[in-house]
Amino acid sequence: MPSSLTLFKRLEKAAPRTRTALEDLLDAIPWNEDGLIPAIAQQHDTKDVLMMAWMNRTALQETLEKMRVCYWSRSRQRFWRKGESSGQVQWLKEAYLDCDGDTLLLIVDQQGPACHTGRKSCFYHQLDSEGATIASAPDMDPEMLYGAPSS
Amino acid sequence: MPSSLTLFKRLEKAAPRTRTALEDLLDAIPWNEDGLIPAIAQQHDTKDVLMMAWMNRTALQETLEKMRVCYWSRSRQRFWRKGESSGQVQWLKEAYLDCDGDTLLLIVDQQGPACHTGRKSCFYHQLDSEGATIASAPDMDPEMLYGAPSS
Repeated sequence: MPSSLTLFKRLEKAAPRTRTALEDLLDAIPWNEDGLIPAIAQQHDTKDVLMMAWMNRTALQETLEKMRVCYWSRSRQRFWRKGESSGQVQWLKEAYLDCDGDTLLLIVDQQGPACHTGRKSCFYHQLDSEGATIASAPDMDPEMLYGAPSS
Repeated sequence: MPSSLTLFKRLEKAAPRTRTALEDLLDAIPWNEDGLIPAIAQQHDTKDVLMMAWMNRTALQETLEKMRVCYWSRSRQRFWRKGESSGQVQWLKEAYLDCDGDTLLLIVDQQGPACHTGRKSCFYHQLDSEGATIASAPDMDPEMLYGAPSS
């Protein structure tokens, strides 16, 4: 068994309220080949799932310290403090890691739309066995969030 | 811009109820290097996020056709029809793809616990800036789900 799984395997039968130090936990997370873990953001009051993005170890530590969500942008290869250009900040309320330590669930208070299209949630393509339907319209014009495209 | 992004970029400004054929959508999904996409499962009535796992194209098609969730198990390298060994089936209610087509959100009716530890949800390690706390106990003994370990 890889050592990265040992901690999570052991904790499966641990009593509720058992504590683990953050460094030990961060050492045990099976970060992917790019050093990342997926993070799901869920709005704390409506319980809507807003988006999924990625974090590295530093982004996760910063998020837990500042209670403001910081992702790692794979496309831009830099830290992405949600809302830094749009103003639509994600404040962290609670954070969870799953049973085998490879996915994060962030309970957040999202200011304005989470999606760059101006929609509340990024999940707006509804699928069925024959195709997909656009299930929602933007609440806000993306140009209000980011300004007009420069080209 | 990679062709895989063109469809999703174009659909950002499409009117609600715009339809796309399933084959076109499946062709446009930016499957990862293993041909997979992450899929978040959310319980339809409580809105609890239960787990995250992975799907390939065939698993997604089967799931949409049969309305029973089928993942691709990365550890076992085979299809994983949730509940096939535990009986804890995930019935699909609705499925969504996100704005850039790289994450699925499945709205499900989960029979029994989603987590292999016997918990309702896999997200039971609650994080803070100093460490993690086990936030819930199993509702069911995993041996009831899978039988006693054979070793």
